[in-house]
Amino acid sequence: MANLNERMVALGTSRSVIRELFEFGKQRAAEIGAENVFDFSIGNPSVPAPDAVNETAIKLLKDTDPVVIHGYTSAQGDIEVRKLLADSVNRRFDTSFGPDNFYVSVGAAAALCCCLNGLCNKDDEVIVFAPYFPEYKVFIEGAGAKMNLIPADTEAFQIDFEKFEAAINENTKAVIVNSPNNPCGVVYSHETCTKLAEILNAKSAELGHPIYLIADEPYREIVFDGIEVPYLPKYYNNTLVCYSWSKSLSLPGERLGYVLVPDEVEEHGLVYAAVAGAGRSLGYVNAPGLFQRVCAMCADMTADITIYETNRNLLYNGLREIGFDVVKPDGTFYIFPKTLEEDDVAFCERAKQFNILIVPGSGFGCPGHARISYCVPTERIERALDAFKKLADSYK
Amino acid sequence: MANLNERMVALGTSRSVIRELFEFGKQRAAEIGAENVFDFSIGNPSVPAPDAVNETAIKLLKDTDPVVIHGYTSAQGDIEVRKLLADSVNRRFDTSFGPDNFYVSVGAAAALCCCLNGLCNKDDEVIVFAPYFPEYKVFIEGAGAKMNLIPADTEAFQIDFEKFEAAINENTKAVIVNSPNNPCGVVYSHETCTKLAEILNAKSAELGHPIYLIADEPYREIVFDGIEVPYLPKYYNNTLVCYSWSKSLSLPGERLGYVLVPDEVEEHGLVYAAVAGAGRSLGYVNAPGLFQRVCAMCADMTADITIYETNRNLLYNGLREIGFDVVKPDGTFYIFPKTLEEDDVAFCERAKQFNILIVPGSGFGCPGHARISYCVPTERIERALDAFKKLADSYK
Repeated sequence: MANLNERMVALGTSRSVIRELFEFGKQRAAEIGAENVFDFSIGNPSVPAPDAVNETAIKLLKDTDPVVIHGYTSAQGDIEVRKLLADSVNRRFDTSFGPDNFYVSVGAAAALCCCLNGLCNKDDEVIVFAPYFPEYKVFIEGAGAKMNLIPADTEAFQIDFEKFEAAINENTKAVIVNSPNNPCGVVYSHETCTKLAEILNAKSAELGHPIYLIADEPYREIVFDGIEVPYLPKYYNNTLVCYSWSKSLSLPGERLGYVLVPDEVEEHGLVYAAVAGAGRSLGYVNAPGLFQRVCAMCADMTADITIYETNRNLLYNGLREIGFDVVKPDGTFYIFPKTLEEDDVAFCERAKQFNILIVPGSGFGCPGHARISYCVPTERIERALDAFKKLADSYK
Repeated sequence: MANLNERMVALGTSRSVIRELFEFGKQRAAEIGAENVFDFSIGNPSVPAPDAVNETAIKLLKDTDPVVIHGYTSAQGDIEVRKLLADSVNRRFDTSFGPDNFYVSVGAAAALCCCLNGLCNKDDEVIVFAPYFPEYKVFIEGAGAKMNLIPADTEAFQIDFEKFEAAINENTKAVIVNSPNNPCGVVYSHETCTKLAEILNAKSAELGHPIYLIADEPYREIVFDGIEVPYLPKYYNNTLVCYSWSKSLSLPGERLGYVLVPDEVEEHGLVYAAVAGAGRSLGYVNAPGLFQRVCAMCADMTADITIYETNRNLLYNGLREIGFDVVKPDGTFYIFPKTLEEDDVAFCERAKQFNILIVPGSGFGCPGHARISYCVPTERIERALDAFKKLADSYK
C-alpha cells in the first residue's frame, strides 16, 4: 500500500454531487437533446466579462515590457495594483484603506485558505452558518481546525442567533459568513450584521481573545433591486474580507481575489503577516501577474448581471405560482426552494425523471431544500417551468 | 495576544536574506547610481517571453468566447491543455504519457505543495540535497513533514551517496531533486541518476513502501553547451515531475506549471488523486485559465537563453581568473563559487563594500559558498568583474 495522505486521496477521489449531476446531464443530453435537459447544477457565470477586461489585457500585453508584466510581483501583490484596489474600495464604501491592507490572492478560495491557515491552530473551531458553500469544510479542515455548523434559519435565511451564541466556546477562532449567500441568494440585513457584531464583541471580550469574522464576498456585486450589501468591516473591527472577481467580472478561471485586513483588526500587522505567511506555506508565490493588473484596472466594473435578475424574477415567480415555498433571493444566481418532500435527495432524484438537474440542500448543510443555479440562458428557465409544474403535480 | 498561527506569522514576518539585499541595493543605487551597484541577488528572468506567448494570448482573447476562456477549467486542468502537454513531453522524451498523467498547477511551488501534501503524513521525512532552494523547507513543513538535509558534495555538486543512504529510514516518504540546480547550476549526470534510482529501488524494497522521487524541474530548458538533462521518470518508476514555465518561457508572475504522475508510479491513480485532493484542500481551484492554454500552445518554445550562456561564460572565466574556486554551471542563471573566507555571511557582507550583492550559501544549506544570479544585463557582469577582483585583493 502506497501509504499516502488518506484525506487528500479521499478529497481527490470523491466526485462531488454537483459534478455527478453535470455528468448525468451530459449523458441525458446525448440521449434526448441538450434542449430537453434542464441543467441547473453548476454555478459557472454565464455572462461574458465586460469588454474592457479583454481590452485592458490586450493593451497591457502590447504596451508593457513582458519582463515586467509577466515577472514576479511582490508576494502580497503589485504595489500599484494594491493602490488601485484601496482607491476603488474607499470610493465605494467611504473607507480609508491603504495598499498595505490588501493581500492579492489566487481567487477567493485561496483568500479563505490564507486566512484560515494564518489564524488557526489545531483544535480551533470555525463557525459556519447553514446553508453554506461545502468547500468551507475542506478549507477549514485543511487548516487543521474544525467546522462548527450552525443550522439554518429556514424562515428568512438570516442567522439563528440563539444557536450561534450557544455554539461559541473558547476554541472559537473565527466565523465565516457569505452574503449574498450561495446557495440561497439572501443578503444579511443591517439588523443581522448589527446583532452579529454585538455578539462577537461580547463573546470576544468574555473569552479574552478576538473572534475573527471572515466575510466571503464573491457575490457582493451580484444583487438586484438596488439592494445594498452591508459592508462588514463597518460593523465589526475584527473583520477580514475575502473577495473575488470570479463572479463580478465573470473570470472564475483566472483566479484573482484579495484578502482585506483593515487597520481596525486587533494586531492587524501580525494578522496580515499570518495571511501572507500562510500564502507562502501553501505555495502561493504571487497572484497571476497580468490579471492582477486587469482586475485592479476594472475593479469598478461588473459583468452585465441583468440576465441574472431576469432569471431570478422568472424562477421566483414561476416557482411560487407552482406552489413552491421559497425565499426570494436578493442576489447571486441561486435560488433555494423547499423540496416537496422532506428527503431532498429523493426529491432531486425524482426531478431527474423530469430532466431537471438541481442540487440537494443536504450538501449545503440544509436538508429539505434544493439549489437551482440560474446562471443559464433565460429560455431554459422558460421551458423548465413546465417541467417543474409536472414535478410538483407528481406529488399531488 | 491575538493567538494566531505562529508558524505563519513567522513566515510572513521574516524578510528573506535575498529580499534584504534587494532593498539594500535599491538604497545604494539612490546614493551612488544604479550603474555602480552590482546586484546579483534575485533570480528573476531577465529575457522577455518569446513573442509567440503574447501573440497567442492576444489571439485567444480575441477569438475565444470569454465565458469559455475565462471560465473554470476542470481542477486538473483543461483537457485540451493536458493533451497538448502530453504530446509535447512525448515528442521530446520519447514517452507515452496521456492527458490524465498531468495535473496543471499554479506554478512549480504549487506543484511541489500538492505533491508533498498529497504524499505526506505527520512525521514523514523528505530528503533534500544541499545546496537547495530554501522554500523546500517551508513547503515540506507546511505538509506536516520534516526536511532531512543531506550535506553537499562540494567537489562536483552531484550527490554524496554515502550520506544519502545513511539518512534513509522508515519515515522517508520522498526525495526532492532539483537539476539543473538552484543555486549551483549543476545538472545531475547519467551516473548520478542511475545510482540514485538504484538506491531508491533497494531502499523502497527494504522498507516495504515506495520512496517517491520528486523532480523539481523549473530550469530544465535553461542549459548550455547542448547538454542533456536526464529525464528522471526513465530512471526510476516512482518519480513525480514538478514543472514550471516560469523560467523556460520567462513567465514567473503568471504561475503556471504541472505535476506529472506517470502510470509507472505505484498505485498511480491514488497518487494522482492525492495530488488533486491536496490542490483542492490548499485552495487551488484550477490553474489560471488563459495562461493554461498559452503555456500549452507554447510548450515547445523557450525564451532566448543565449544571454544566460554568455553571462555564465563571462562570469565563470572571470571568477576563475581572479582566483575563485568554482564549479562550472551546466545551466540555470546561477553560479556558486566558494567564498574567500569560511564565513560566507561575512564574505557577502564584505562584498557589499564593493557594491556587489550576492547571497550567502548558508541559506541554501551550503556554507562557504555564495550564489551569484546572472540573469542580468551582460554589461553589469563586465563592469562587476573589476569589483570582484578588488574584493579578492582585499583578502590578500
